[in-house]
Amino acid sequence: MLRIRPSALIAASCALALSLAAQAAPPTKAEQTLKYRKSLYQVIAWNFGPMSAMAQGKIPYDAKEFAMRAERVATVAPMLSESFPADSKGVAGSELKPEMWTNRGDFDAKMKDFVDKSAALATAAKTGDFAKSKAAFFETGNTCKACHDKYKND
Amino acid sequence: MLRIRPSALIAASCALALSLAAQAAPPTKAEQTLKYRKSLYQVIAWNFGPMSAMAQGKIPYDAKEFAMRAERVATVAPMLSESFPADSKGVAGSELKPEMWTNRGDFDAKMKDFVDKSAALATAAKTGDFAKSKAAFFETGNTCKACHDKYKND
Repeated sequence: MLRIRPSALIAASCALALSLAAQAAPPTKAEQTLKYRKSLYQVIAWNFGPMSAMAQGKIPYDAKEFAMRAERVATVAPMLSESFPADSKGVAGSELKPEMWTNRGDFDAKMKDFVDKSAALATAAKTGDFAKSKAAFFETGNTCKACHDKYKND
Repeated sequence: MLRIRPSALIAASCALALSLAAQAAPPTKAEQTLKYRKSLYQVIAWNFGPMSAMAQGKIPYDAKEFAMRAERVATVAPMLSESFPADSKGVAGSELKPEMWTNRGDFDAKMKDFVDKSAALATAAKTGDFAKSKAAFFETGNTCKACHDKYKND
């Protein structure tokens, strides 16, 4: 018997509808920017995953993999700032709280914290010292949380 | 009068349907991998954009920006290989042709070409020499095309 998950059917029909809609109206600059922004966060989250599992003791510490993931996050983090231009304000599908636009200085400072702590994490991870790497990971995670708590609709 | 684009309505209703579907069934490992893969290509494409426009003379050559974009592509390119694991075979929503799975060696060689040419592009871009940067950019673009022609459904 052929079994198809309902979610797969919905996804397929929506993909088709969105594809037709996309043909009718090409994505705006703001929509493209949002897609780029979400892609960057996705790349960061993917690489955060194994570091988080190691830091929490859910999987064994692998110094080489941890350092590779940390390096990747540190190189992608500085790309984020470009993905919040003024002309992306109010774009549909974003989880960004509107307060960001009236607290830009604070938002940018929080973003800089994340970039700085990510760089420190990559440096710590290179030592291969688990305690140092773990501490630097949680410090980086705290900078994510500080910004998400204030500026992200979950 | 409130004007709403039909595409926005479709997108909103689909987002809702997909969100409900997502609650019912969390994304599979393969779906998560596909999302990561698409994010990486999106980050690469975004940074390719201005280099392409400069190489084609559509916008003025800005050596500093060109070098920054090239460096970003070179750091993201090696992340791609992880996003084609065997357990992502056949995942819905992918543009990957099934032939890849029976030509894995050729696919991996084409991916390595892209990684190598991206690294060479970043090195060339650092010189600030437009002719060298442009040549290296087109060589990188050719490695994209070689793989897409054979393994991507456009």
